[in-house]
Amino acid sequence: MEQESAKLTAQDGPMYEGKAKRVYKTDDDGIYMVSYKDDATAFNGQKRGTISGKGIVNNQMSNLFFQLLEQNGVPTHFVKELNERETLVRALTMLPVEVVIRNLAAGSMAARLGLEEGMPLSRPIVEYYYKRDDLGDPLVTVDHIEVLGMATPEDLAQVQRLALRVNEVLSETLRKVDVILVDFKLEFGKTKDGRIVLADEISPDTCRYWDANTKEKLDKDRFRRDLGGVEDAYAEMMRRVKEVTRL
Amino acid sequence: MEQESAKLTAQDGPMYEGKAKRVYKTDDDGIYMVSYKDDATAFNGQKRGTISGKGIVNNQMSNLFFQLLEQNGVPTHFVKELNERETLVRALTMLPVEVVIRNLAAGSMAARLGLEEGMPLSRPIVEYYYKRDDLGDPLVTVDHIEVLGMATPEDLAQVQRLALRVNEVLSETLRKVDVILVDFKLEFGKTKDGRIVLADEISPDTCRYWDANTKEKLDKDRFRRDLGGVEDAYAEMMRRVKEVTRL
Repeated sequence: MEQESAKLTAQDGPMYEGKAKRVYKTDDDGIYMVSYKDDATAFNGQKRGTISGKGIVNNQMSNLFFQLLEQNGVPTHFVKELNERETLVRALTMLPVEVVIRNLAAGSMAARLGLEEGMPLSRPIVEYYYKRDDLGDPLVTVDHIEVLGMATPEDLAQVQRLALRVNEVLSETLRKVDVILVDFKLEFGKTKDGRIVLADEISPDTCRYWDANTKEKLDKDRFRRDLGGVEDAYAEMMRRVKEVTRL
Repeated sequence: MEQESAKLTAQDGPMYEGKAKRVYKTDDDGIYMVSYKDDATAFNGQKRGTISGKGIVNNQMSNLFFQLLEQNGVPTHFVKELNERETLVRALTMLPVEVVIRNLAAGSMAARLGLEEGMPLSRPIVEYYYKRDDLGDPLVTVDHIEVLGMATPEDLAQVQRLALRVNEVLSETLRKVDVILVDFKLEFGKTKDGRIVLADEISPDTCRYWDANTKEKLDKDRFRRDLGGVEDAYAEMMRRVKEVTRL
């Protein structure tokens, strides 16, 4: 495969550096390399810290999930894991919206709407957020997205279909290792030929995972809320995801 | 008509007092009386003041619009204007959502999404806000409304249809007196037999009106933004609405 020969363009620094990842160009302009950091931020960058080993967990967990999702009909940007922290992915034009799927009320939705955390929802709620750090990533509606041209109605319908499919696959998979998928954030991009593809990461940084029996949080809420045991939670989730994706 | 004999139940105070109106029960339990105040608030009650004569303008303008809308197929709560500040309306079970229709970017939408005020929209945007003062009336999506039971999908579809019809009728009417209807807020209620009916008010408190030629603001933004000439703007809009609804 052509992409297997893709290498870092050594003279370049990252073309993009986010809060938890760096993205590099490669010799193949259809392929980027993602490098996962241990840096952790919360509340739109107001809280900062480090979670030792997080980059390794997030890289490996995302890649296991991406491969599982590919097998279940969801196209993803995953190409090849290079090492513990680095992965080759397809170069995409990213949509400027984050997609959040919620199975239980928690986090910002529970706070904004005055709901008890953990309240079950009769069906999954799909939310969209405009990716604008300077605006605090505001919640947007389908009308905002379509009228302001963040995505076409067709692309948005495909994003919603894929996001709900991701929710089905991951919720069912995680249930087998006693994890409740409370909510999670996805990002999508578009290929040159116009296909919508799942990108970014799926990790304890971007999901709420609760132990099904103890309701213990096994995700970044331990960092956000100063609950302690952050590294242990990431490692425990990694163990369970490895176990269930090996089944 | 029975409702014409409705009277204030003298021994009772208001059954509800809002920021700009009081609502009283009457001897007819299907009819309430609304009394419009001159009190003005903004930013969820953080700014307070008085706009002299506002209650008269808002009462009379709402009633002229409600009658115009009834003639154009939109059911409203309007029953009978009693005097300058008081009107009989149908008793409804109010939906816990405010509906905002926007023709140009302005106000909270422009601020939240980083848009220039006055930016035209390719089609009207309909937004919903959860009526919860304690939560700051948060923006909600169709998913939130349906899953959290704020309205049924059928009721919400009817609300949207009626809101867009209101926008057509009022935009076209106001254009004749050189007023741009930038955006406005509506509230709906439900009759005992399950019909969705337009309620609340339609006034310079709840609409953004811009003079089509000068772009001068003729609404509560003059109060919110300390622009001066608040009473004159309300009076000028009253004059134009009286003129055009008499046509």
